Amino acid sequence: MRPSSSPSEPPGLFDGVLAAGPVRAATSDTAWLRAMLDVEAALARAGGAPPEVAAACRPERFDIAALGVAAAESGNPVVPLVRALRAAVSADAARHVHRGATSQDILDTAAMLVAREALGLILADLSAASAATAGLAEAHRDTPVAARTLMQQALPTTFGLVAAGWLTALDGAGDRLAAVRDTGLAVQLGGAAGTLAAFDSPSIVDRLAVELNLPVPALPWHTDRTRIADLAGVLGTACGVVGKVAGDVVLYAQTEVGELAEGEPGGSSSLPHKQNPVAAVSARACAAQAPGLVATLLGSMGHEHQRAAGAWHAEWAPFTGLLRATGSAAHWLARCLAHLRVDAARMRANLDLTGGALLAERVSAALAPRIGAGEAHDLVRDAVAAGRPLAEALAGHLSAAELAALLDPAAYLGAAPALTDRALKRHGERP
Amino acid sequence: MRPSSSPSEPPGLFDGVLAAGPVRAATSDTAWLRAMLDVEAALARAGGAPPEVAAACRPERFDIAALGVAAAESGNPVVPLVRALRAAVSADAARHVHRGATSQDILDTAAMLVAREALGLILADLSAASAATAGLAEAHRDTPVAARTLMQQALPTTFGLVAAGWLTALDGAGDRLAAVRDTGLAVQLGGAAGTLAAFDSPSIVDRLAVELNLPVPALPWHTDRTRIADLAGVLGTACGVVGKVAGDVVLYAQTEVGELAEGEPGGSSSLPHKQNPVAAVSARACAAQAPGLVATLLGSMGHEHQRAAGAWHAEWAPFTGLLRATGSAAHWLARCLAHLRVDAARMRANLDLTGGALLAERVSAALAPRIGAGEAHDLVRDAVAAGRPLAEALAGHLSAAELAALLDPAAYLGAAPALTDRALKRHGERP
Amino acid sequence: MRPSSSPSEPPGLFDGVLAAGPVRAATSDTAWLRAMLDVEAALARAGGAPPEVAAACRPERFDIAALGVAAAESGNPVVPLVRALRAAVSADAARHVHRGATSQDILDTAAMLVAREALGLILADLSAASAATAGLAEAHRDTPVAARTLMQQALPTTFGLVAAGWLTALDGAGDRLAAVRDTGLAVQLGGAAGTLAAFDSPSIVDRLAVELNLPVPALPWHTDRTRIADLAGVLGTACGVVGKVAGDVVLYAQTEVGELAEGEPGGSSSLPHKQNPVAAVSARACAAQAPGLVATLLGSMGHEHQRAAGAWHAEWAPFTGLLRATGSAAHWLARCLAHLRVDAARMRANLDLTGGALLAERVSAALAPRIGAGEAHDLVRDAVAAGRPLAEALAGHLSAAELAALLDPAAYLGAAPALTDRALKRHGERP
Amino acid sequence: MRPSSSPSEPPGLFDGVLAAGPVRAATSDTAWLRAMLDVEAALARAGGAPPEVAAACRPERFDIAALGVAAAESGNPVVPLVRALRAAVSADAARHVHRGATSQDILDTAAMLVAREALGLILADLSAASAATAGLAEAHRDTPVAARTLMQQALPTTFGLVAAGWLTALDGAGDRLAAVRDTGLAVQLGGAAGTLAAFDSPSIVDRLAVELNLPVPALPWHTDRTRIADLAGVLGTACGVVGKVAGDVVLYAQTEVGELAEGEPGGSSSLPHKQNPVAAVSARACAAQAPGLVATLLGSMGHEHQRAAGAWHAEWAPFTGLLRATGSAAHWLARCLAHLRVDAARMRANLDLTGGALLAERVSAALAPRIGAGEAHDLVRDAVAAGRPLAEALAGHLSAAELAALLDPAAYLGAAPALTDRALKRHGERP
Repeated sequence: MRPSSSPSEPPGLFDGVLAAGPVRAATSDTAWLRAMLDVEAALARAGGAPPEVAAACRPERFDIAALGVAAAESGNPVVPLVRALRAAVSADAARHVHRGATSQDILDTAAMLVAREALGLILADLSAASAATAGLAEAHRDTPVAARTLMQQALPTTFGLVAAGWLTALDGAGDRLAAVRDTGLAVQLGGAAGTLAAFDSPSIVDRLAVELNLPVPALPWHTDRTRIADLAGVLGTACGVVGKVAGDVVLYAQTEVGELAEGEPGGSSSLPHKQNPVAAVSARACAAQAPGLVATLLGSMGHEHQRAAGAWHAEWAPFTGLLRATGSAAHWLARCLAHLRVDAARMRANLDLTGGALLAERVSAALAPRIGAGEAHDLVRDAVAAGRPLAEALAGHLSAAELAALLDPAAYLGAAPALTDRALKRHGERP
Repeated sequence: MRPSSSPSEPPGLFDGVLAAGPVRAATSDTAWLRAMLDVEAALARAGGAPPEVAAACRPERFDIAALGVAAAESGNPVVPLVRALRAAVSADAARHVHRGATSQDILDTAAMLVAREALGLILADLSAASAATAGLAEAHRDTPVAARTLMQQALPTTFGLVAAGWLTALDGAGDRLAAVRDTGLAVQLGGAAGTLAAFDSPSIVDRLAVELNLPVPALPWHTDRTRIADLAGVLGTACGVVGKVAGDVVLYAQTEVGELAEGEPGGSSSLPHKQNPVAAVSARACAAQAPGLVATLLGSMGHEHQRAAGAWHAEWAPFTGLLRATGSAAHWLARCLAHLRVDAARMRANLDLTGGALLAERVSAALAPRIGAGEAHDLVRDAVAAGRPLAEALAGHLSAAELAALLDPAAYLGAAPALTDRALKRHGERP
Repeated sequence: MRPSSSPSEPPGLFDGVLAAGPVRAATSDTAWLRAMLDVEAALARAGGAPPEVAAACRPERFDIAALGVAAAESGNPVVPLVRALRAAVSADAARHVHRGATSQDILDTAAMLVAREALGLILADLSAASAATAGLAEAHRDTPVAARTLMQQALPTTFGLVAAGWLTALDGAGDRLAAVRDTGLAVQLGGAAGTLAAFDSPSIVDRLAVELNLPVPALPWHTDRTRIADLAGVLGTACGVVGKVAGDVVLYAQTEVGELAEGEPGGSSSLPHKQNPVAAVSARACAAQAPGLVATLLGSMGHEHQRAAGAWHAEWAPFTGLLRATGSAAHWLARCLAHLRVDAARMRANLDLTGGALLAERVSAALAPRIGAGEAHDLVRDAVAAGRPLAEALAGHLSAAELAALLDPAAYLGAAPALTDRALKRHGERP
Repeated sequence: MRPSSSPSEPPGLFDGVLAAGPVRAATSDTAWLRAMLDVEAALARAGGAPPEVAAACRPERFDIAALGVAAAESGNPVVPLVRALRAAVSADAARHVHRGATSQDILDTAAMLVAREALGLILADLSAASAATAGLAEAHRDTPVAARTLMQQALPTTFGLVAAGWLTALDGAGDRLAAVRDTGLAVQLGGAAGTLAAFDSPSIVDRLAVELNLPVPALPWHTDRTRIADLAGVLGTACGVVGKVAGDVVLYAQTEVGELAEGEPGGSSSLPHKQNPVAAVSARACAAQAPGLVATLLGSMGHEHQRAAGAWHAEWAPFTGLLRATGSAAHWLARCLAHLRVDAARMRANLDLTGGALLAERVSAALAPRIGAGEAHDLVRDAVAAGRPLAEALAGHLSAAELAALLDPAAYLGAAPALTDRALKRHGERP
């Protein structure tokens, strides 16, 4: 078998956008091969095979393309891998290779290793995004910005609270991923029928688990795919959160809004003025892969009897793709947020676009004691409807100073700063 | 407003199949209305409104159809509900109705109440299914059955271990649902901009949470939909597990397999011999709704800014539909398993269909010391390939007694009984 | 059986938003019941049953809730419907009721009738949306507006071309729906095994098709779900188009953009200045249901053998839901577009926000002959980067008149008007 | 730029199963690169660029990995490709490279070329599957087999009709794919704003279309994704059909059914008797990717304004993945069907498993004139319920010859042979 020339395959044409960051390598075929070999090696050690078996489990000795081609015969890449591994050791050792295991034992356990590694990387990028967001929340604790509902300016809020909302969601996504990584994975070992019949003792499972530092499941889980579904769920959630934050950045960065800008925007060769928020856009694109891939994984949970007739094979692509998309989305978002430029002046200016309409409710309440609630309400409503600045429309009823105070968005922020503090405190208390 | 004539709307044409069991009522429009009113009442109490406000929050006083029609004007049913509620109380009390809240506060918190109720019902049905499965695992701890991989008989296992696999998956799904119900829900209250600006104090959130016995979130979560995603994930997982078990039942119940039968199969008016596994079939149909609905919920996480321009409204149908589908699936499965008939004799007979081929490996190993490993392997392989019973093919090499022992599937079950015991023990130790 | 009290059930709590327009009634349980009875009546006529059978097929004589409940026994509502229908006629006629047919024959054919009716309504609303869009394209053939890419202003275009793009997409979606309605539906009739064994002659299929004005399929299609998939595909496409147009409206209607406004926006009780684009928002919410429902329908195509063990039942909800969501989305969009207010002045003003940067390329090219291409490019780029208006930055190099001409967006519209004309011409030529 | 060493990248670890057949290469990064260069070359010719531009558009001169990495800067691989292409020609020619076009023009048109090529391959494999199926339908026109509904034997049918059902569905899927390939694709060219402003004349679109033999669209379709949705729909349908047929094969190949077997089943190293239907299983796995990928594509139709902020990038992976999954599914199915072994004797034997119960209706009708309809019905029902063979139970009422005739499944096939003939005729008449 021709040894593969490099430890990792090169990026693909779309990988710069869709598989950004370290998760690409961690979910590459090379990573899968390494994980499969790690499992075979651990099984060899756990089962008392001659040391040469584990020693032979080195990825650079195997040819991914050849394994891929040969996988077609038996329906999975473990069969040719085992064959190649047997050929790589002495005849005596060969008998110990893969002994008692079934292909799915190896590939499922390898999937757990791939997931654990990828989750670590995803968590690091989510954590970076989260840290950057915490910085924004802190720095802009008291920066007024328009709260927008249904894309319309509604009331003032602070950009600190906006960022705190991102922070809480990002931390929540990270907590969920960490929980699955730390307690939701498990070694897979059951043999052809899930009965461990070909092993000397069921304790082999415990020994394998120790070797790989993975939890021991109650039972072999060949056709109980709750672990895969857990992963799908938390990855889908993480993508949803990333997509939400990235989407907000894109909206804030619009030419007409201009409250945020990426620090490293993508240029356009033909349009020099454009400041494309490439990181946020790419994060959205990656995050958008998730719902469909989650659906494929959930839709493939119906593994028949003791080994599925297709549903298992159907998991491989969405499993890898979902880890990759989430990792890439998180990576892009971390980049986006790390260098985000906040234009507080523009935020303030945009708050004035409606001539005080965002404070209509407040002004109305202040005016009521003087001219009656009904008249106050009508006066304010008519001015707003006519697009007339409230400062002007109400000049006859309130002094300039009163109006300035009432129409100051920074004075109508409710609990925004306090809520921001609370979110930052919780963030700071995370382990 | 015309009072609705009944506490709950009647079942729909497809509800007998697709909304079976108590979850239908718990996710009905009436249940939603009740939950919304419970939130308004709790908010009134928490905010110190006159008692007549909470007293007016009785579902039978409101007309669902009229609210539904009026919802079109403002884009959600809370606006007309608040209007109707204000009209139902004194002018003075009317000012306290819904004070400081935004529509989404009410509907999101109501969603939490609807979910909590529905999850309780789903858990009860999953628990019933689980109990029935535990009974099967115990009763058939040592009953041999063919393990089937890729729909082919592979090796012997026990039906106890099969049932234990179902049990572990069902318990796992239940544990996940219970965790979300117990810690993943939260009260929603932020007002129009999420700043609580229109409330006297942020402590209103705590008081509302106490009223409704819901956790207090770090922040208003109007556009952080991780809680909805959590629900989606665990409901999707539960449906996947139910679909897996139901699918197995359908396969075991095939005319040509005949190892399981539903105790209350559906008849066919024209075909009297048919024993349709209607409960398992219906469970599969309900469970099949989940991946798409989960995808819709995950795909709707991109709530813009402080209130989404469509993504929130997009949640209502899949949120309700997913609770309903999961509850119905669990209900059907509980019915299916409660009366499942196990035909151990047929299981034993089917194990013999291949003339001992399922034990080829074992026989081969026993024969090797006598005639050499190579010859033993070839002899067995050729007999299996020719479809010749091993007992006959090997009669010249092994005694009848030896052959009978070697070809006894009950003697090649590996750790199946021990694994079953472990699964039952874990099941028994659940809270 | 208790007669149902009304010809159609009342709207649900969320139907004002999620089931807007006539499609709600056309996809209601009553519509399904009527369609099923239409099929039974047509079958009776085609099969030469006594006239009293067809005469008894009146929806008001049947109780939907009771049928729904009873459906649980056999797994579908046709079995109890047939029972009730038999009870409603003489014993002699009863023998002719449903003769030779299987439940799926009735329900699948009814689905075709429901779909045909709903498609007609969807097409009418799409057509209204399309007509409104054509009006916009015509009226604003030469109205400059910023072309926005990645949410950044890029170059000038016309609002006419924007509307023409919507028009072409809407017409395309309509054409696809019409094609499926006109040629993609078919009568379903095969009997229990799909062999027509219980009918006197296979010609019954042709007679039934004539009765219902539906095409005759090559074969019974109980487990060939390509027709359902076709419907899913074109409905999903239509929702995608509606969502795109509605999304654009929401973006144009942002407070900071203000180029479009809905003529009948939703008010906010607490925020009088808000002009929520409720129709566009609701259209987006409805359209967002489609991808998941399409996935459920495609994921349910694996109908086993001659009748599926769950996949058929799994279609009912997404089939109805997808028709309904599409119809509602189209209805909201038609409402949105019918009264859309275009603010051409604001479009023009927004084009100036970047001080001519949108015409940088053009100015650069005009300047090159005078000062060299390199210097021209640098000069323009630096001005744009500094946010300096080009008219000011280049005042020393070009005359005010030249600059005014070069920086006139209306003079750099490329083929926008011609393309708009072409789209309108094609629209006008549609049948 | 380092030239890539080979014309096509090697297969990946899972490609043997998930990207089987020629579609892998046709959807590889190399194929994408070639298509992009074909578009640039065609644009150069259409736009009158010096011939050296088109001459430089040779894939082997470009480094996919480097393009992929560089794509991250601008958000797509066209920008670095254009840069590299410019560097590969003279300074004078460089000015003509990509002139007037935008990245999406190139990539979208390339997508059309990739799709056209892939569709051709998919159609070839579907056609092979279809031809094999037609052979089965013809050969087994009169072979009785049990019709199975809800996985229960229901009535006799013929395997010819079963195969005819597959045939009709496969041909239907092929017709849909061919229609999209032949009329649903279109060249994309609009420039940065879709106005063609940077081109001398809009006729460039026609010239480009001629060069590439693609239809001319009414308008640039940068944000009208109906073409992508069309492709998604028909590919999803094709996968659904493939999955249905493959699923049936798997069911027929079960150990306990044994009516079909793959001619080239996958072996199991440890279980020599297993005849895994690897081709059908792999076809199912590939087909299962479709619903989620279709959902992603439909869910990404909301391209904002004139160029999407993420939704376009989100298409790349599912677009490629869906073509690949469909091609692989079709390839596996063609292999499966080409060598399918039909066991007509086993089909006949399985028909007898229920002792004539499948013909209960027929026997009952024959018996009625002799002993009364009521008694006949009860007698037959009781025998069936007791699992007693009808031939035995009714021996006192009908002669052995009569019983043999009545219980002959081959004599109760309805229109199965005629329907099979019709399907074959339609198949033969296809263009």
